[in-house]
Amino acid sequence: MHRQAQSELRNRLEPMHPADIAYILEALPLDERLTVWNLVKAERDGEILLEVSDSVRETLIESMDRDELVDAVESLDADEIADLAPDLPTDVVEEVRSQLSLEEREQLRAAMSYPDDSVGARMDFDAVSVREDVTLETVLRYLRRFDRLPDHTDQVFVVGRDDILRGALPLDSLLTNEPEVMVMDVMRRDVLTLQVLDSQSEAAQAFERYDLISAPVTDPQGRLLGRLTVAEVVDVIREEGDADLLSQAGLREDEDLFSSVWRSAKNRWLWLAINLCTAFFASRVIGGFEGVIEKVVALAALMPIVAGIAGNSGNQTMTLFIRSLALGQVNAANARRLVVKELAIAGLNGVVWGGIAGLCAWWLYSESPQGVLLGLTMTLAMILNLLLGALIAMAVPLGLQRAGRDPALGSSVLLTFSTDSMGFFIFLGLASLLFR
Amino acid sequence: MHRQAQSELRNRLEPMHPADIAYILEALPLDERLTVWNLVKAERDGEILLEVSDSVRETLIESMDRDELVDAVESLDADEIADLAPDLPTDVVEEVRSQLSLEEREQLRAAMSYPDDSVGARMDFDAVSVREDVTLETVLRYLRRFDRLPDHTDQVFVVGRDDILRGALPLDSLLTNEPEVMVMDVMRRDVLTLQVLDSQSEAAQAFERYDLISAPVTDPQGRLLGRLTVAEVVDVIREEGDADLLSQAGLREDEDLFSSVWRSAKNRWLWLAINLCTAFFASRVIGGFEGVIEKVVALAALMPIVAGIAGNSGNQTMTLFIRSLALGQVNAANARRLVVKELAIAGLNGVVWGGIAGLCAWWLYSESPQGVLLGLTMTLAMILNLLLGALIAMAVPLGLQRAGRDPALGSSVLLTFSTDSMGFFIFLGLASLLFR
Repeated sequence: MHRQAQSELRNRLEPMHPADIAYILEALPLDERLTVWNLVKAERDGEILLEVSDSVRETLIESMDRDELVDAVESLDADEIADLAPDLPTDVVEEVRSQLSLEEREQLRAAMSYPDDSVGARMDFDAVSVREDVTLETVLRYLRRFDRLPDHTDQVFVVGRDDILRGALPLDSLLTNEPEVMVMDVMRRDVLTLQVLDSQSEAAQAFERYDLISAPVTDPQGRLLGRLTVAEVVDVIREEGDADLLSQAGLREDEDLFSSVWRSAKNRWLWLAINLCTAFFASRVIGGFEGVIEKVVALAALMPIVAGIAGNSGNQTMTLFIRSLALGQVNAANARRLVVKELAIAGLNGVVWGGIAGLCAWWLYSESPQGVLLGLTMTLAMILNLLLGALIAMAVPLGLQRAGRDPALGSSVLLTFSTDSMGFFIFLGLASLLFR
Repeated sequence: MHRQAQSELRNRLEPMHPADIAYILEALPLDERLTVWNLVKAERDGEILLEVSDSVRETLIESMDRDELVDAVESLDADEIADLAPDLPTDVVEEVRSQLSLEEREQLRAAMSYPDDSVGARMDFDAVSVREDVTLETVLRYLRRFDRLPDHTDQVFVVGRDDILRGALPLDSLLTNEPEVMVMDVMRRDVLTLQVLDSQSEAAQAFERYDLISAPVTDPQGRLLGRLTVAEVVDVIREEGDADLLSQAGLREDEDLFSSVWRSAKNRWLWLAINLCTAFFASRVIGGFEGVIEKVVALAALMPIVAGIAGNSGNQTMTLFIRSLALGQVNAANARRLVVKELAIAGLNGVVWGGIAGLCAWWLYSESPQGVLLGLTMTLAMILNLLLGALIAMAVPLGLQRAGRDPALGSSVLLTFSTDSMGFFIFLGLASLLFR
């Protein structure tokens, strides 16, 4: 690129928010992405690396040498370094760690030790804390010594001896009460408190339910370790939604829009391989009934309908059931009731749509001698397959959850596998009995 | 229920957060739900109605008479009344409106006039505003006159004459600067500002990108009307994720877990009807090739594989493509590049998985004289159908978006329809040519 264009571009990037630069980098093909990346001032590299998606971050890190990486990362907070660490070469992490203060080094160690889906992995260490036996005036004077408060500070935490959390003082009370009032007289003692090992997903539900901006995070002894903010919670919610969508399509990870064909293809192969296996299994089921298909070839044309509708109906049941499981609305007391209800819906759908499909089949093949029997087989097979689909749609997620796995993962393959194979088996099996 | 048990239950409900009561109501069958609902003190009815899901809200409103509804609603803010209004009988809304102050009545009218997906429909009118030519001390004194600040106040807005927005004063600056400083010297002038008719979804992306807690909302002339808070944004993000999941399964709305079988079934019928139509269309395609199936019955067993794998692969392409569209990453400059990439992936998948499927088919039917030809037909048909699937997966969402519709809605039906019908057509058509 021409040098003048480069300096113009640099000037336009200069005032931009790191998140905006990250967005631009994600939307650019690899070569142009690296050109822009090299123009961004070195001291902002770290913040931008935090903002880009995992797949794009990899391409950026690959383009940097050791010293550049150390420069980029060392300016970050301990919790941010912990976020990047898994993607960095180990010698870079070591070098950065060696330059940290003792306290930060301990924070980094802690942040990296929490499981990925725990509150600890998302918390920051910027919690501002005060004592309860001082006046608001003292707190105000203390806060005025900060250049700025940590982002998303809507409350300061009140701690006792050994940093044991006693409550929180919302900025709101700090501002609306007279300066002479004591902290202990206006602090909130019932503040929602998270533990480092709590699940992020449940913490996000609490933030959503109680409209929180920040919540203190403590260790099991009740000592204040840090806080979780709504900014992280928004990311958790968005990522959960994305992961659901991606995993439903069998995509293992979010793809860089401009990664190589080879790399993108590999991201999708496991899913296609699994589906090819299940499809061949269903094909063998059909193969077992070649005799009856040879006799009544119309069966070949009608069988995908039986399999398809049960798959769709089962998918509806499964989507609602997985959602109810995730929201904790299904319990031992109402599970039986829900199962009965879904089976009733499946039965009703079977009678209605199986009936319509049977009539259509009869009408389509009304000139052949087997028309009536084809329609009857169709209706019966659809009722049975819809019931089966509903059962599978509830049993599989429930089983996965009991086994401690994510109920959404893999359920849909198993459902399609069952409604296809069993749909063919029921329909062609019934036909074998009826068309002798 | 026994009277003592009732009073005990009432005592336990008393201290609970409205969101928690809403959660309990949603997880209870209708009769028990109404028992609990009647125990909740009347003055909290309004807040709880705001928290429950649409389908559950309907059941609660149905159980209340006119006066109860008026009592429940009249204690709410104008923007909250506007949220409930569509579900309330018109005479209740009229009665409540007549009791509002002139200003609130105007707010209610405005809030109800904004489109459902606009920022206006989600904003509240609780914005605290100050002038720029006063000291922080004056602002602090002004704030102290509030009993409490509106929820999620992280900044107060700075307005000039006619309420024109000039900037914002973060509470942070208010607390860390000396009281003698003037507002104009520490206020932020580059504050992210929304307009009432901006899209909620884009506003949510801005909150997410810049980690905001609140943003001022203005009219086109720049006058401050209210603000949007992160609590509403979290709801927008969650609802968008839910809507994606539900619409993918063809569910028209979120279901009350305990609604009647009949009502639930109706929620699912449109989808099943559409799918039955497309399945019958595909069935007619197969019906057109009954001659060749009669000759080589193995075709009937193999054809679902061709259709299924292309459907799965197309679904992966479509999921990623719709996501990129939603994030605004697809534009005229890179669209061609993305299309070429996805077609290359589809071609590669066709050669790899079509090849494997062809070999399997050959091996399965190696004893029949048509084994080799069957395998070859399989491979060719899969390559063609995967390419077709990828094209449809990109063309349909793009077309829907250009037509101003939601690209996610209806795309998957069209995709399955194409990969099924065309898969059968390509595979059986090729077979008709090869097996003469």
